[in-house]
Amino acid sequence: MIIKQYKNIYCIRLIHKEDFLEQLIKFAKENNLENAIILNGIGMLKNVQIGYFNNEKYITKTISEPVELVSTNGNMFINPKGMPEWHIHVALAEKSHNMIGGHLLGGMVWNTVEIFIQTLSEAKFVREMEDGNLRLNFK
Amino acid sequence: MIIKQYKNIYCIRLIHKEDFLEQLIKFAKENNLENAIILNGIGMLKNVQIGYFNNEKYITKTISEPVELVSTNGNMFINPKGMPEWHIHVALAEKSHNMIGGHLLGGMVWNTVEIFIQTLSEAKFVREMEDGNLRLNFK
Amino acid sequence: MIIKQYKNIYCIRLIHKEDFLEQLIKFAKENNLENAIILNGIGMLKNVQIGYFNNEKYITKTISEPVELVSTNGNMFINPKGMPEWHIHVALAEKSHNMIGGHLLGGMVWNTVEIFIQTLSEAKFVREMEDGNLRLNFK
Repeated sequence: MIIKQYKNIYCIRLIHKEDFLEQLIKFAKENNLENAIILNGIGMLKNVQIGYFNNEKYITKTISEPVELVSTNGNMFINPKGMPEWHIHVALAEKSHNMIGGHLLGGMVWNTVEIFIQTLSEAKFVREMEDGNLRLNFK
Repeated sequence: MIIKQYKNIYCIRLIHKEDFLEQLIKFAKENNLENAIILNGIGMLKNVQIGYFNNEKYITKTISEPVELVSTNGNMFINPKGMPEWHIHVALAEKSHNMIGGHLLGGMVWNTVEIFIQTLSEAKFVREMEDGNLRLNFK
Repeated sequence: MIIKQYKNIYCIRLIHKEDFLEQLIKFAKENNLENAIILNGIGMLKNVQIGYFNNEKYITKTISEPVELVSTNGNMFINPKGMPEWHIHVALAEKSHNMIGGHLLGGMVWNTVEIFIQTLSEAKFVREMEDGNLRLNFK
């Protein structure tokens, strides 16, 4: 992972075979971030696991073949255990150019991922219990 | 709808069963916005209506089942009647993880939508007639 | 192409039948940009060519029919020849509302494209050789 900070924007390149979510969590921890907004992220992923939430649990699908990472969207928040966590949805294109997507559960960088992240200097994003669900709030 | 402003960035969480576009218009009106750029937006939607423009009209499709909102992109402008209006394209993932998308015509928040919006302090986005079409201009 | 700059954000509208990538390169050259981050971009494209990288070359697909441009993500960097170049992934919706996508190789604006781009005042994005591949670095 290569990181360069320009004020409140972080430019990140992830390296072939790095774990996508592990690296983003490491990045958040090392920079003591309490919030983050993904501006954009593209590249390729392999062994991606995506989920569709059916109101009880995630219906998951794992794609073992490399896929083009067409869009990466979401945010970073502090979870109830006080740790940074990412909420990310991805759009992926297969070899056929057809697209699949959903909630990102895991994946490995393939060739490269280039991702740009904005932080807000005085904000803290948290997830708190609300009507039985963990929901995002802005402090 | 929960809104928190940090300078020129608005962090918004929409609530289960809220009307997506109605809330975004309400947000724009209440904050007297004359422009907005969507940084990212994810969550779930239900009863989404999307359109494909065939040069005459939108060919529409309504998806009654909840779908993952994989990406939300676009902008807010002032229409010829002087009212804020959004131009938004969405990418959606169904239970099969297959994706459909297009121009957003309507939809209801399902579980949650988290959306981040940037405004420009001295800009006004408008739509004006140009060769028989309403086109975006920047003032 | 209509361009309006607000500090480090460029708001751009591309015109019917303009070449999408040619115009973005022209924009970068005319503004002497050494980096750019796409915030969002929507509209329609025609004759789009997209690619899936199979570790040797791009497997390409050309879509002659107009498609909704659902998302535009990526960045601009200075290539080894010292010229600006874009790395862009697009998500597209066909008349059926089904989505295809991948690495953007070419395409023509259809009706309109509205795109918002952020630049970093002190950054230079470059592609340099690394283990036999051109990789993005941040200066």
